[in-house]
Amino acid sequence: MDIRKLEDLLRKVKSGKTSLDEAISQLKSLPFEDLGFTRIDHHRSLRKGFPEVIWGEGKTTTQIISIMKQLKGKGQNILITRLEERKAEAIKRVFPKSRYAPRSKVLIYLTHSVKFEGKGTILVITAGTTDIPVAEEAAITAQIMGNRVETLFDVGVAGIHRLLNERQRLEAARVLIVVAGMEGALPSVVGGLVDRPVIAVPTSVGYGTSFGGITALLAMLNSCASGVAVVNIDNGFGAGYIASLINRM
Amino acid sequence: MDIRKLEDLLRKVKSGKTSLDEAISQLKSLPFEDLGFTRIDHHRSLRKGFPEVIWGEGKTTTQIISIMKQLKGKGQNILITRLEERKAEAIKRVFPKSRYAPRSKVLIYLTHSVKFEGKGTILVITAGTTDIPVAEEAAITAQIMGNRVETLFDVGVAGIHRLLNERQRLEAARVLIVVAGMEGALPSVVGGLVDRPVIAVPTSVGYGTSFGGITALLAMLNSCASGVAVVNIDNGFGAGYIASLINRM
Amino acid sequence: MDIRKLEDLLRKVKSGKTSLDEAISQLKSLPFEDLGFTRIDHHRSLRKGFPEVIWGEGKTTTQIISIMKQLKGKGQNILITRLEERKAEAIKRVFPKSRYAPRSKVLIYLTHSVKFEGKGTILVITAGTTDIPVAEEAAITAQIMGNRVETLFDVGVAGIHRLLNERQRLEAARVLIVVAGMEGALPSVVGGLVDRPVIAVPTSVGYGTSFGGITALLAMLNSCASGVAVVNIDNGFGAGYIASLINRM
Amino acid sequence: MDIRKLEDLLRKVKSGKTSLDEAISQLKSLPFEDLGFTRIDHHRSLRKGFPEVIWGEGKTTTQIISIMKQLKGKGQNILITRLEERKAEAIKRVFPKSRYAPRSKVLIYLTHSVKFEGKGTILVITAGTTDIPVAEEAAITAQIMGNRVETLFDVGVAGIHRLLNERQRLEAARVLIVVAGMEGALPSVVGGLVDRPVIAVPTSVGYGTSFGGITALLAMLNSCASGVAVVNIDNGFGAGYIASLINRM
Amino acid sequence: MDIRKLEDLLRKVKSGKTSLDEAISQLKSLPFEDLGFTRIDHHRSLRKGFPEVIWGEGKTTTQIISIMKQLKGKGQNILITRLEERKAEAIKRVFPKSRYAPRSKVLIYLTHSVKFEGKGTILVITAGTTDIPVAEEAAITAQIMGNRVETLFDVGVAGIHRLLNERQRLEAARVLIVVAGMEGALPSVVGGLVDRPVIAVPTSVGYGTSFGGITALLAMLNSCASGVAVVNIDNGFGAGYIASLINRM
Amino acid sequence: MDIRKLEDLLRKVKSGKTSLDEAISQLKSLPFEDLGFTRIDHHRSLRKGFPEVIWGEGKTTTQIISIMKQLKGKGQNILITRLEERKAEAIKRVFPKSRYAPRSKVLIYLTHSVKFEGKGTILVITAGTTDIPVAEEAAITAQIMGNRVETLFDVGVAGIHRLLNERQRLEAARVLIVVAGMEGALPSVVGGLVDRPVIAVPTSVGYGTSFGGITALLAMLNSCASGVAVVNIDNGFGAGYIASLINRM
Amino acid sequence: MDIRKLEDLLRKVKSGKTSLDEAISQLKSLPFEDLGFTRIDHHRSLRKGFPEVIWGEGKTTTQIISIMKQLKGKGQNILITRLEERKAEAIKRVFPKSRYAPRSKVLIYLTHSVKFEGKGTILVITAGTTDIPVAEEAAITAQIMGNRVETLFDVGVAGIHRLLNERQRLEAARVLIVVAGMEGALPSVVGGLVDRPVIAVPTSVGYGTSFGGITALLAMLNSCASGVAVVNIDNGFGAGYIASLINRM
Amino acid sequence: MDIRKLEDLLRKVKSGKTSLDEAISQLKSLPFEDLGFTRIDHHRSLRKGFPEVIWGEGKTTTQIISIMKQLKGKGQNILITRLEERKAEAIKRVFPKSRYAPRSKVLIYLTHSVKFEGKGTILVITAGTTDIPVAEEAAITAQIMGNRVETLFDVGVAGIHRLLNERQRLEAARVLIVVAGMEGALPSVVGGLVDRPVIAVPTSVGYGTSFGGITALLAMLNSCASGVAVVNIDNGFGAGYIASLINRM
Repeated sequence: MDIRKLEDLLRKVKSGKTSLDEAISQLKSLPFEDLGFTRIDHHRSLRKGFPEVIWGEGKTTTQIISIMKQLKGKGQNILITRLEERKAEAIKRVFPKSRYAPRSKVLIYLTHSVKFEGKGTILVITAGTTDIPVAEEAAITAQIMGNRVETLFDVGVAGIHRLLNERQRLEAARVLIVVAGMEGALPSVVGGLVDRPVIAVPTSVGYGTSFGGITALLAMLNSCASGVAVVNIDNGFGAGYIASLINRM
Repeated sequence: MDIRKLEDLLRKVKSGKTSLDEAISQLKSLPFEDLGFTRIDHHRSLRKGFPEVIWGEGKTTTQIISIMKQLKGKGQNILITRLEERKAEAIKRVFPKSRYAPRSKVLIYLTHSVKFEGKGTILVITAGTTDIPVAEEAAITAQIMGNRVETLFDVGVAGIHRLLNERQRLEAARVLIVVAGMEGALPSVVGGLVDRPVIAVPTSVGYGTSFGGITALLAMLNSCASGVAVVNIDNGFGAGYIASLINRM
Repeated sequence: MDIRKLEDLLRKVKSGKTSLDEAISQLKSLPFEDLGFTRIDHHRSLRKGFPEVIWGEGKTTTQIISIMKQLKGKGQNILITRLEERKAEAIKRVFPKSRYAPRSKVLIYLTHSVKFEGKGTILVITAGTTDIPVAEEAAITAQIMGNRVETLFDVGVAGIHRLLNERQRLEAARVLIVVAGMEGALPSVVGGLVDRPVIAVPTSVGYGTSFGGITALLAMLNSCASGVAVVNIDNGFGAGYIASLINRM
Repeated sequence: MDIRKLEDLLRKVKSGKTSLDEAISQLKSLPFEDLGFTRIDHHRSLRKGFPEVIWGEGKTTTQIISIMKQLKGKGQNILITRLEERKAEAIKRVFPKSRYAPRSKVLIYLTHSVKFEGKGTILVITAGTTDIPVAEEAAITAQIMGNRVETLFDVGVAGIHRLLNERQRLEAARVLIVVAGMEGALPSVVGGLVDRPVIAVPTSVGYGTSFGGITALLAMLNSCASGVAVVNIDNGFGAGYIASLINRM
Repeated sequence: MDIRKLEDLLRKVKSGKTSLDEAISQLKSLPFEDLGFTRIDHHRSLRKGFPEVIWGEGKTTTQIISIMKQLKGKGQNILITRLEERKAEAIKRVFPKSRYAPRSKVLIYLTHSVKFEGKGTILVITAGTTDIPVAEEAAITAQIMGNRVETLFDVGVAGIHRLLNERQRLEAARVLIVVAGMEGALPSVVGGLVDRPVIAVPTSVGYGTSFGGITALLAMLNSCASGVAVVNIDNGFGAGYIASLINRM
Repeated sequence: MDIRKLEDLLRKVKSGKTSLDEAISQLKSLPFEDLGFTRIDHHRSLRKGFPEVIWGEGKTTTQIISIMKQLKGKGQNILITRLEERKAEAIKRVFPKSRYAPRSKVLIYLTHSVKFEGKGTILVITAGTTDIPVAEEAAITAQIMGNRVETLFDVGVAGIHRLLNERQRLEAARVLIVVAGMEGALPSVVGGLVDRPVIAVPTSVGYGTSFGGITALLAMLNSCASGVAVVNIDNGFGAGYIASLINRM
Repeated sequence: MDIRKLEDLLRKVKSGKTSLDEAISQLKSLPFEDLGFTRIDHHRSLRKGFPEVIWGEGKTTTQIISIMKQLKGKGQNILITRLEERKAEAIKRVFPKSRYAPRSKVLIYLTHSVKFEGKGTILVITAGTTDIPVAEEAAITAQIMGNRVETLFDVGVAGIHRLLNERQRLEAARVLIVVAGMEGALPSVVGGLVDRPVIAVPTSVGYGTSFGGITALLAMLNSCASGVAVVNIDNGFGAGYIASLINRM
Repeated sequence: MDIRKLEDLLRKVKSGKTSLDEAISQLKSLPFEDLGFTRIDHHRSLRKGFPEVIWGEGKTTTQIISIMKQLKGKGQNILITRLEERKAEAIKRVFPKSRYAPRSKVLIYLTHSVKFEGKGTILVITAGTTDIPVAEEAAITAQIMGNRVETLFDVGVAGIHRLLNERQRLEAARVLIVVAGMEGALPSVVGGLVDRPVIAVPTSVGYGTSFGGITALLAMLNSCASGVAVVNIDNGFGAGYIASLINRM
């Protein structure tokens, strides 16, 4: 609750400009509405200039379209993650300007153009080619949140010269997102090469004892390089989001 | 390897200013030395204006003092983490200007005053009082890396009004470090209240199924708030370090 | 075994009203029957006025209908959980008065109207919209066991004001069921706001390190709020059941 | 925040009885104070008539005594859990009326006599003798929160007649706390015998694959009896607390 | 290697009845043959009068039929476990006398009638109805190995009187196989009621934290009753096998 | 409850030989007494001719001596497991005829000589020398329960000829207890060599990924040899107990 | 980076034979190219005479064919692992000389005949028949890397004589690959019989507590035989690869 | 069993040179003796020219000295691992020529000088300084088994240039042992730089989610570089042993 707004309100109560009931009602009415199945918080996106994000998994096409309509009415940009192709196609029929990236299962719908608010470049790096879907989710998230994004794919540590060849790009980035499965070693090497924050994203790529990304996650949490923080397995969106917060600073 | 330095060197080889052997030797001699038991990389700290960091656990007092002497000779500030009180006392006899924080087991030794490079305030928050040692490690790390640091302790989610009462301080911070054990829920709540990056630090506080911090770690990785990234259990240093990288931006 | 019934029986043996064989037979014949594949214990439901509960998973439609017929004959209300839609439709053809909730996969069949035995309101809360199926299983269970049930959905901790706006409803409830996946933090916050027992239900909602609900479960077990007890992952039925026992008191 | 208090306050602002600054200050000043290392929330205990609870582990004797003095000043009853004998003795020298239970490591200090608020009996049951310390923590917690408590120890499932012999006591209880280590089967059996809520407490008793209580915990979460909810391993306090909440109803 | 056969052979070598090469060859030729994809060890079954056992999972119908033909040629009885219905039907076309139990996915083919070698009855007990498939695998295994088998299904611990009602049957058995999922408590109770060896079989029945049978397995390993040993999850065959070994004694 | 005793009792009630109150009291008074901290069940040992077993860990010397005195009064043989040397010495002062085995931490006290009830030999085998303490616990348990016991130590699978050299002893045993840590492979090999039940005991011997015996336990549960059942890690007592039950048959 | 090539290059820079730009360009142009989705490192295979390896899982047929065409152009031999039959058929239409092994899902395409570089025989052993697919992956890998490979299947430890019968073949091998699921005991026994390096491969064969190969993996890591090293679960390729490196020595 | 010795023996039986009983006895008497608590297998070391290895942990000084005396009598070299300093000192008093390395807790005793049998150099690499104890165990093992050993310590991946600076030494080695804790990434990078077998040793160095070496182990098993095989956590001995087997080839 904002102290200045409270002060303002109390002043109006005192002066009689605002009735008691109205004051209580105002204090209670925070700006979100009830769609029956989900509460959308415009408050946040209005405040931040951020898109509204919808987690596509487990929602029906009908539910998603209903939310999108309401958000469009508010003039919001929309980012939908983990959206199956089948649903994306149905949505495109209603919102033809939607853009869907099948590899990362992300759909975006812009009601207004994205304003560049990031101060530098966010570089999204992957260890292998199978990590690309997660990296793309991160990249699209960062783009719709107003950042210049570059990518550098398939530079895993078993061929370390591939990474070292790109040191200039590494050093030019302001924030780095490093996406890796299997042994998850890439963030440690990258973290040792740059002076910028590294957001590490473990992926569920691998087999046997990769345990669906747990090995990569653990390796990243135990990185011997400083300057590395970690998000959940396959959480490209989360990485893109926090990288965007940092790049605005 | 820096392309411009390489260009420069090649130019000197061509002009004969630098002999072949010298060129090869220069290319090979990277700025670290061999102390027998550990390699110190001045390169990094020189470049970054960062302190040298020594992991105190598992090193003998003699080893640490030997490293400190060498670093002092290079004019480095020194941060030692996980240092038992017994060792700290022995070190203080040799380096009387050392300052030791027994709660967090951190020792710092300054050869020059810390230059403020952080652009805003880093706020270090804990859920409980038992989380304070880890928080202090984060705070001291951030301070010696040139940041203004504030703290807000014992504002766990079971008494949510304690946290909400401090919203102004939350919103005033540029980077937030949130330290919590047990169910690790605090970063989610904080992440929902601010538009700034939140670095979450799980602590090994708890019993039974807290599993020495694993529960808190998992909860933080699964935070329903965006803008949260996580470091290893009890890794106050790592949180302070990446928060410092971000706060310089 | 009931001491008074035993006394009674012995008295009749003594007086000759009951023969020896009959006495032994009575002592042995507890009120359940063998359907071949499952033993139904009327004893319990008769005693408690509770519905009979059938775990639908892994039973064939034929088996379920056979059990239902027998229970109907005894005048029991019936609650079937984890029932696939396909089976529900087949059952409805035989028991047209059945009511099926596809979201929570629960079917109820009433042979007599439910008697309100709960003394207050049970409030079922969810953190997100994807937790609703489990919450609905809890709500329906509590209703058929004779309680007034209210629901409050999608009030997760990342938007803490959504929950705080509903404090009056929280405080009005006599028992609270809190359903959450991901980091499972909601029961801690709710538990800190009310003086009533909170039954926490972890859900398998999430991905990566949510581990199918284990993270939420662990967080709930480690709740820093007192007054919270936990049931198995996705066990909406169990939560509704114990909440009903409490609300009768 | 309490709506009626807010209404009241606004009324006074309107009438001029309360100045603007005072109103804001009142709204901000929630009833807890900062002891430097811990925030005590009188609010809760005042409201509930509950004792203040101090988690003794990891706090120094000096810290605990400082908190106790402040609480005594407020007229609070005090319950300290997980308190080593050595610390208890030091505390007793300052607070001679303290009572310490060495088996469960619980200390209580009463500033006023406990008022019976529980409506029935809470029965605390253990499977073995080694589970008794945890059971005692639960029992003392329930007692200081105003309940009649009975105990029934060493009635594990391998000698089922020992439990069945006590069926009358089981059925007489209003709430049951069942404490068990090893295979944790007792709550299932008890839950099948009574119609009352059963709070199950796994203990870390056992060896090998008991995994410090995890096996018992898992067994309890998977109880085939309805009406069972679970708290953290060795969390006697938590069980006593929620049982007390229920028994007041 | 059998000492007496060796003695015999050496004697023949000495006497010249057996040539050197023949002796070496005999010592080397142990009685199994190479079918290309699997080695069948008649040795064992010949010695024991046991059936040959084929693990059906992961073998093609063609492979199984090829093995069966060879075994039939040797006059062996055959037990195939984990055999999908589809494969069973194909096999029945070639071996019409096969008997297939779809619930437990076991097929048996007898080339000669089973000789009763067990000295008493093996009683197979389940906690619930969903445990029956595993129990049936155990029962069929014990039968084809020459035992009288009885079954007692759905007598889980939440309705303890159902089990106690059958105490005479429990006490009449010579070996008991107890099959349970969920919290796996039944073997503890049974083990406390009888003086006979109890073979406990955890099943993968359950959800959430039943972890596919791990909870039941752990509970059984930690049984507070003596006289209980455990086999792998869902390993009805293994339980039937060792129970048969015991019942011959 | 024994049906014949019940019949008998009812007959006496009918005939007036036993009064009603007496009958009820007899039905209720099962033969165990309350020592305050532990319930001893003479019933079982009387019935079985087995020793009374006391779990020494977590009991004080005073408690143990008190239990022993009572048992001695009943003429019971006593077996105490997991008893620290320090306690054993104190006990020996009170019960000088006690015999203590420091390696396995087992104390036995005989009030009467052990009657041989086992029909053959129980062979206790270990993989390494560090497994011997657990093996000794099994051996002593089997001996006091009336069995001839032989041992065969340090015949692990990495030197398979050591085991094969002893095949005659393996084949002579009626029941085999196989104790192994590390990779726990020995029961599989032994199980393939004999036609007798094999009780496998995993030990906590090893380091790193031996995980305190879990690796050995898992290996034993997955044994490719039939006829193997498993007890808890380091549970020598449990293995000796069930082997004794089997050897009586 | 190769020091001699650097020396050479610098010499040419000095003499003017190579221009500055060219030198920098040469230093930068390492021999791999960007196919858009994957970076192929010819460097390695050229240097080693090894085939190029493609991980087939998660790549589309189109992607694989595109990589193959490029590799064929370079004269490389190609090994594709984890390739579904469906994709293999499509590839065969474009590269008819491809050979596909459906059991192990490996495809090889030779542009030139394989040169034998291995100095002895690599023996690939399996415990069971279900381990054969992984063993075949290892065998084909070793063959295409220039080794003579022999196989010995279905010699698991429960029938130890089957293995002992083949001791001459074991002793004749220069490197041994031992493939086993379930309890993973075979490498320990083999390692005790030979003086050669044993590469152990756990397979995901089994059920229940085999945990998809983890039990076998743990057992192998804890092998009581020296001379055993382990690769990932089902990693036949990795075993074949390191065995090839060793056999060239 | 050796076929030629068997042939020889049979020939003597035939000719009467060897009696039947003697032949059987010879076949049975394999060359190891029973020391009461441990079986020493001279067979192996005689055959291989390897030292005898004693696992020091869990053996008393007396036991170790007794084994050493016997081995010395056979002219064996001796390697004792995991030997506490206190025991080492006691042993030195009896065997003054022993050499003890306190960092790695290894003692060696030579009865004859070590013969160099390794064909090249074994290079032992560590990521950090805290990994050195394990590396030293590997190095000493390899030395006493007849290899030239070099070491390269503290070249972890966060400062990748430190490793790259030593490429010539990496490429000169015939076998590489790579020792690392924390995220365990070093073997992947080394494996990508060399064409030689890499034996990876995870260490228990780290904290929090390093889980005592499990994270490093998992990372190594999932190495994206080919040519890497792994031994148990902290198993320096095992790495030194298999590296020695390879280096003889």
